[in-house]
Amino acid sequence: MNDPREVRRAIRRGAHPGHTAGLAPGYVQGNLCILPREYAGEFAQFCERNPKPCPLLAASAPGDPRLPALGDDLDLRTDLPRYRVFRDGKLAEEVGDLRALWREDLVAFVLGCSFSFEQALVEAGLRLRYLEAGRNVPMYRTSIDTVPAGRFYGKLVVSMRPFNPADAIRAIEITSRYPRVHGAPVHIGRPELIGIEDLARPWEGDPTEVRADELPLFWACGITPQSVVLDARPSLCITHAPGHMLVTDLVNASLAGA
Amino acid sequence: MNDPREVRRAIRRGAHPGHTAGLAPGYVQGNLCILPREYAGEFAQFCERNPKPCPLLAASAPGDPRLPALGDDLDLRTDLPRYRVFRDGKLAEEVGDLRALWREDLVAFVLGCSFSFEQALVEAGLRLRYLEAGRNVPMYRTSIDTVPAGRFYGKLVVSMRPFNPADAIRAIEITSRYPRVHGAPVHIGRPELIGIEDLARPWEGDPTEVRADELPLFWACGITPQSVVLDARPSLCITHAPGHMLVTDLVNASLAGA
Repeated sequence: MNDPREVRRAIRRGAHPGHTAGLAPGYVQGNLCILPREYAGEFAQFCERNPKPCPLLAASAPGDPRLPALGDDLDLRTDLPRYRVFRDGKLAEEVGDLRALWREDLVAFVLGCSFSFEQALVEAGLRLRYLEAGRNVPMYRTSIDTVPAGRFYGKLVVSMRPFNPADAIRAIEITSRYPRVHGAPVHIGRPELIGIEDLARPWEGDPTEVRADELPLFWACGITPQSVVLDARPSLCITHAPGHMLVTDLVNASLAGA
Repeated sequence: MNDPREVRRAIRRGAHPGHTAGLAPGYVQGNLCILPREYAGEFAQFCERNPKPCPLLAASAPGDPRLPALGDDLDLRTDLPRYRVFRDGKLAEEVGDLRALWREDLVAFVLGCSFSFEQALVEAGLRLRYLEAGRNVPMYRTSIDTVPAGRFYGKLVVSMRPFNPADAIRAIEITSRYPRVHGAPVHIGRPELIGIEDLARPWEGDPTEVRADELPLFWACGITPQSVVLDARPSLCITHAPGHMLVTDLVNASLAGA
């Protein structure tokens, strides 16, 4: 499926319950985070203060499951294949749609994700070892504090991709043009300086080899807001299930530029 | 002196025989390379094939000492404070002007220099240790081959500036916006991979400390074309004397953008 509306329609009628990776190539996919209105202002502020891990693409009006900025017909209750429901910071259930759970006080936030910049890297001829190996990108909790906003605070989580030095420079050049999807890396070369003790033991995802002629590059990761939000134990928080993203009508190229 | 025309007029009348660093801040200074017409085509081709070490800003018509693209009143015979004259690849003399040496078959090339991107780095709040120490940037011959053009070929020369990882990423982001003055670095972090055995022993310039929490960044250096040209032993080659550059009417900011 190449058209994002077609993808959303298929998901909406239950015909695509799986991952969204590779669907509607060239279109932006987003992370979803839904919170009750009483947390929404603080979360919006947290995103504003931490644009690298939390690049906010759009937020809904309270109770409104639509987000026309990201797609005319888009319905956040039905257009993702799988959702996670957290109560008091703990995973309560995974569901295929939100029709039974939707409330008039819910506010939805959609954040940019690394799929967009990874497409730009691959189009530039760079290779992503974890993708080629069919694994997940390794993620690490760092010693870097996010900028707090009310009840939301915590450590920055990063994803790691290794490159040889010339490709590392190209990867920095390319991703710096995508500030709305994490932008340039936050660190290069010395994991111990940001509190990462052992690259072979990621906090999430699968370990990836860093060869002798390579440097590890670390990007702010979209799992950071989820980690920070759940630590605050909100009464309700609904996210996409990992890999089951919101497919939008925005083209990746539209995110390029500062 | 803040105005580039004022600077050139002072130099032209012999009132400023010294270095041009810090003169006309914000304006582009250029490296000069003058060759007899019989070498000019090959040198232009060499620049085209090696834009990182040889970012060509302008070339003159044969015998014409003017370069209106870089300054209405500009006269390449008189507007640099000091020139070096090489015959058969060997330094023959240093002179204060070229009026006695100018010939109808000479072609002048002006190349961008790192002063422009260094200004952008400093304006972004990054610190250049070698500048603060009042020393010269360290330069190294690498094992990287330039792309040959006729009689011109040889190894890439690089300059090195150390930064902590976060600043290294910013330095790459910033200099990648200045492709006409060397652009992004060619290497980061592993000098041994590009044939540099000992950072403490530069080929030219002064050694600069790389601290434990820093990475060395390597940019293509404007000394590369001079090294390559002199190896070809042209009958005549005239360059600026080190630090005695051509001050142009171009503003540094005009070079930003790909």
